[in-house]
Amino acid sequence: MSLNEVAANKCFDGKQAVYTHDSKATGTAMTFAVYEPPQAAHGPVPVLWYLSGLTCTHENAMVKAGAQAYAAERGLMLIFPDTSPRGDDVPDDPDGAYDFGLGAGFYVNATESPWNQHYHMADYITEELPSLVAANFPADMIRQGITGHSMGGHGALTIALKNPGRFNSVSAFSPVVSPMNCPWGKKALGRYIGDDREAWKAYDTCALIADASERLPILVDQGDADNFLSEQLKPHLLREACEAADHPLTLRMQPGYDHSYFFIASFMRDHVMWHADALDGN
Amino acid sequence: MSLNEVAANKCFDGKQAVYTHDSKATGTAMTFAVYEPPQAAHGPVPVLWYLSGLTCTHENAMVKAGAQAYAAERGLMLIFPDTSPRGDDVPDDPDGAYDFGLGAGFYVNATESPWNQHYHMADYITEELPSLVAANFPADMIRQGITGHSMGGHGALTIALKNPGRFNSVSAFSPVVSPMNCPWGKKALGRYIGDDREAWKAYDTCALIADASERLPILVDQGDADNFLSEQLKPHLLREACEAADHPLTLRMQPGYDHSYFFIASFMRDHVMWHADALDGN
Repeated sequence: MSLNEVAANKCFDGKQAVYTHDSKATGTAMTFAVYEPPQAAHGPVPVLWYLSGLTCTHENAMVKAGAQAYAAERGLMLIFPDTSPRGDDVPDDPDGAYDFGLGAGFYVNATESPWNQHYHMADYITEELPSLVAANFPADMIRQGITGHSMGGHGALTIALKNPGRFNSVSAFSPVVSPMNCPWGKKALGRYIGDDREAWKAYDTCALIADASERLPILVDQGDADNFLSEQLKPHLLREACEAADHPLTLRMQPGYDHSYFFIASFMRDHVMWHADALDGN
Repeated sequence: MSLNEVAANKCFDGKQAVYTHDSKATGTAMTFAVYEPPQAAHGPVPVLWYLSGLTCTHENAMVKAGAQAYAAERGLMLIFPDTSPRGDDVPDDPDGAYDFGLGAGFYVNATESPWNQHYHMADYITEELPSLVAANFPADMIRQGITGHSMGGHGALTIALKNPGRFNSVSAFSPVVSPMNCPWGKKALGRYIGDDREAWKAYDTCALIADASERLPILVDQGDADNFLSEQLKPHLLREACEAADHPLTLRMQPGYDHSYFFIASFMRDHVMWHADALDGN
């Protein structure tokens, strides 16, 4: 697999770059961004994945979250994947809705037609892209953390839970914690995976928590002025699932904060430190 | 003058908001953004102006520069103005070029037709908007600093030099230091101000330095991998002008950095601290 570097900028004494490549998982060209901290010039560094939310590309967090400052401070590589396959032959929501299709891959492997031709974001994020990162960057793949926002928080939590032993740390900003129990999730899983709700459990953090073989502590920040709080995000479901399973959870309700990148930027330092502390320990 | 708040987000325990208002200076609606740090809840705080570069609006630095984190740390209000008048009746570059007209007001008062009807950004930034800020926000107008990027660095430096006593501190990122001596500046001043090069000196930092009645120290960061370095920015002209006038200048050439917001974000903390240190002293 060959990578094309399409942009590169020095940033906090490291390198922020954007790459494209042909993906076998999605059957499309894919774009992602990598921040290499200055420490990467001297050898492999731990990796922090950031999965973005609905409507986002690799770019949103890369330019708005302020994560590079903290990654440079602690010597973490940041990976910013895209949120869906893209291209003229990739089907989109028939109504052009923002919450399904392009920009809304939900980090699943679709099984239903026509989505199952390209929407294999689970394979892309958990298999193909890690291989590509390991082969092309000074990444210490033994030390990985994962975080994300909203749909990307759902992605981070489910991927960490479904890949025990891979990640040293996990966190999320305003995550979708139970797609089985919110309109965004029901729409996405119903279309991508089909009507069998048992199959949805593989992509539901609250369902996965119950059966987790590893009790990796979770940090979640959630604004209490988030427009999506009560209908889509429902952090109390995560709290209940973690309490029932005795799964360690730090859920911080942040007063007055909304769903925007101004919220994410405000708590990004805490998240990078959460991951760096866990990754330093290995 | 009434303000319309069109967006507001909690950010680093303060408030990041966007406002529109009808401007007498430009004869158009204008948009600007304000960050109120958490300290502003308890009383007036010092003000740091950030003037943006070509093609930018109020939004670029607001979302990409990471300044709010440091402004919250030190208790500074940030003001992000737009870079030109806008609207259907505002004339633009006849060729649609990015370096003149909309998004390229150069912080001057145009005297030439048709630009002189709306392009009064000098009056807007130095008179109207400060009055509006003083009247509507908990701003300590006795303590002000000013900075900016590229064309906005030109704006910050010239406005500080032309308004002695107003600012306690000034800095710039990759500024246009002598519009009389670069293509961007010659095009803009020639059209906005006319052919009389004597009149251009009022908008040329290097010319103004010679006659400055106040020797406010200047901090400039400039990437040495900046595409515009040799043709447009020419920091050596600023160094020579400051040496000739014995004007205090800290000019830092930053190896490997370009003209992007990744560069600005990398050194924003230094600039906010530069201003905060000066503003704390009063």
